[in-house]
Amino acid sequence: MLKFTEDFEVGSGRTVQIDIKKELYSAKTDFQDIAVLDTVPYGRMLTLDGIIQLTQFDNHAYHEMITHVPMQISNAKRVLIIGGGDGGVLKEVIKYDSVQEVVLCDIDPEVTTISKEYFAEFREAFKDSRANVIHEDAAKYVKEKKDYFDVVLIDSSDPIGPAVVLYEREFYQNVYNSMTKDGIMSCQMESMYYHHDFIKEKITTQREMFNSAQYYYTMIPTYPGGSIGFSLCKKGDSLSQKSGLDEQTLDELKYYTKDIHDASFVLPKFMGDI
Amino acid sequence: MLKFTEDFEVGSGRTVQIDIKKELYSAKTDFQDIAVLDTVPYGRMLTLDGIIQLTQFDNHAYHEMITHVPMQISNAKRVLIIGGGDGGVLKEVIKYDSVQEVVLCDIDPEVTTISKEYFAEFREAFKDSRANVIHEDAAKYVKEKKDYFDVVLIDSSDPIGPAVVLYEREFYQNVYNSMTKDGIMSCQMESMYYHHDFIKEKITTQREMFNSAQYYYTMIPTYPGGSIGFSLCKKGDSLSQKSGLDEQTLDELKYYTKDIHDASFVLPKFMGDI
Repeated sequence: MLKFTEDFEVGSGRTVQIDIKKELYSAKTDFQDIAVLDTVPYGRMLTLDGIIQLTQFDNHAYHEMITHVPMQISNAKRVLIIGGGDGGVLKEVIKYDSVQEVVLCDIDPEVTTISKEYFAEFREAFKDSRANVIHEDAAKYVKEKKDYFDVVLIDSSDPIGPAVVLYEREFYQNVYNSMTKDGIMSCQMESMYYHHDFIKEKITTQREMFNSAQYYYTMIPTYPGGSIGFSLCKKGDSLSQKSGLDEQTLDELKYYTKDIHDASFVLPKFMGDI
Repeated sequence: MLKFTEDFEVGSGRTVQIDIKKELYSAKTDFQDIAVLDTVPYGRMLTLDGIIQLTQFDNHAYHEMITHVPMQISNAKRVLIIGGGDGGVLKEVIKYDSVQEVVLCDIDPEVTTISKEYFAEFREAFKDSRANVIHEDAAKYVKEKKDYFDVVLIDSSDPIGPAVVLYEREFYQNVYNSMTKDGIMSCQMESMYYHHDFIKEKITTQREMFNSAQYYYTMIPTYPGGSIGFSLCKKGDSLSQKSGLDEQTLDELKYYTKDIHDASFVLPKFMGDI
């Protein structure tokens, strides 16, 4: 039996192994190593630089929560996805009739090519006429946009390698400037158990520019520790949940509900006043 | 470097490995293999039959949630802990002034002996004058008690080996009979991602006798999938949260808060009407 092995951060002493039926794809692009593996427990799995990005088993927990939490409290016409070249976030965004334009900016075109080939569930989303997929450095792209996007979703990999810049103050400021006055941003923000100080630092930085920044989480077994968080940053005042999705679309989701929306902001005591 | 390896259910294709500084203890008792390991990422760790039971890093997420969710909605005088020979649940129960008697019934005396020796944080709890530690078959013990316990906490290992009986209908019925009329039980009830059908079956059985049975969860990185659930079963009507703990004691907890109490019952969509 082939085994995929991921060290949860080098030197952490924590390793996960997953039995593999077959390696479907493996290549080195200009930016990173990409692999698609057919796993025993989780169906197909996409890895970048040896880190699990998504599996067919539980990616909905991540994609639905990074997308619908901000989208359900906006009335977004223009949406920017940073990273997310696999299309998993795009698939959720195009469920909103209010959306007129969605720009997906992922630096590595190979992620999109490979995702379309091996993940049928994301393939259709790229055919949506509102979708505009570009392969540029997102840090440069957002600099040139002012007062444009209603929602920005930062579906980045962990803050190592090419994604480091996507966690820096200057980048957040440029994202802020690219957004309309009541714009909302949601960004991947690591594990509450393993990255408390990192989360605290980043959210504190975001609060210097945004009107509010709040941590929320989703439970996802294939990520380190079984959960991952997001930071929800609002440029304007708080809005309450709308019914941006019709009842049937909402009912077809696998993780998000209106009650989970609220509950996902309630954090264990050890998170303190983050 | 020594490595501890746990297969998350034999044949599941999912394995976790943890770097070990030192094996502190290892023995085979009449009931199971016990080991205490000093790990790199999680401090000291107790395993039974090769399965992680608790670590110093995250055991509070489990012990606080199995205990305080039922205890905070009761005014318990008499409490029964089934399993839990390590003392982690006992430590939480004795925080309540209302408690006059707490029986801890774990079949294996070695778990308690070892826990007292290697886990200083649980040692003190056994000295509480209200604690009565007995080493019997809990399934037999509860049969002989009628209308006695206000709260029963079933801190069992997974439903394999000696713990199988603790998930059976007859056992639940005997626990029910051992409880006072407004008694509350909380029991370990597996992972929502990996054991959906098992959970559904057990909770359906519990609802045949109890007035209500509800699934709630805690996030705990060292358990499979990073979360584990409990079933909260009430013999009487629902009671709202009380302040069973004084503010200072509540503030010293690491996971439980009154808001987490409520949020922990809010489940992802895929859990359906469980």
